Amino acid sequence: MVVVLGLDPGSRVTGYGIVAETSGCLSLVEAGTIRPPAKRDLPYRLGKIYSGLAEIISRHAPQESALENVFVYKNVQSALKLGQARGAALAACTVAGLPVAEYEPTKVKKSIVGVGNAPKDQVAFMVARLLGVANPDWAEDASDALAVAICHLNQRRLNHLAGL
Amino acid sequence: MVVVLGLDPGSRVTGYGIVAETSGCLSLVEAGTIRPPAKRDLPYRLGKIYSGLAEIISRHAPQESALENVFVYKNVQSALKLGQARGAALAACTVAGLPVAEYEPTKVKKSIVGVGNAPKDQVAFMVARLLGVANPDWAEDASDALAVAICHLNQRRLNHLAGL
Repeated sequence: MVVVLGLDPGSRVTGYGIVAETSGCLSLVEAGTIRPPAKRDLPYRLGKIYSGLAEIISRHAPQESALENVFVYKNVQSALKLGQARGAALAACTVAGLPVAEYEPTKVKKSIVGVGNAPKDQVAFMVARLLGVANPDWAEDASDALAVAICHLNQRRLNHLAGL
Repeated sequence: MVVVLGLDPGSRVTGYGIVAETSGCLSLVEAGTIRPPAKRDLPYRLGKIYSGLAEIISRHAPQESALENVFVYKNVQSALKLGQARGAALAACTVAGLPVAEYEPTKVKKSIVGVGNAPKDQVAFMVARLLGVANPDWAEDASDALAVAICHLNQRRLNHLAGL
């Protein structure tokens, strides 16, 4: 069994999704969001992102982690803010010894629905379908995190088939 | 005695400087840099920034931390990279329970040499002078971290005098 932690870091909401694969079958382990108190300052919220993820990693012991490699930002300030959230999240993964894989957003979508430019709700629908969950109650950020976890598991299988 | 950790986070070099104040007298506790292996990927290096600072915090038990509040970047990519280093560093501070204070670079310079637009070597000279170190062997990033720690201790004293 391989267990992968998918992440969608953000300074207000950090989505996470843990997916297990056993003999080619995917199953949901846990999905959710970390939402540090909005009234506290950014450094405090970054600490909560770190410690929240550290707790989730210690509870489910995923072997690998994955997130989207985002290159487009509205402006320098939003890049700085998102960068700090990513920094706290990535530190939590690598301090726990998890390798981190990064994927282009189009690659994640293609891995889930077959095309790279699909609308968000189509991807969310297929994420639930692939995990066999009829009425998902997870937030959008959690769904995005599950998508990148599934993408990574697909990529691992392709690498394995290709003998990489 | 108050012990303050000053930080100058960067994805390649993170400077730190710990300064103690006893009855208005400043003294150097430790200054140095964290330099994660340059050949490893960014997530790994972020983990090393986090765990390096966590170790330093646990060894010296500073009560507060401070860093410069930088708003100007060459471009979005450098903002994202610096943001991630800052995120890992700030998470290490707040997970350890340290409050984080941020200061404008001009404020730090003014606090050390009396003017906000002083050249870097003048600030470095005065940092060593204020700490009573004749031949400092620390790196530039460590000196910058010491500067913001001293600035924070000055600000604390001013706040105290003003009854804040």
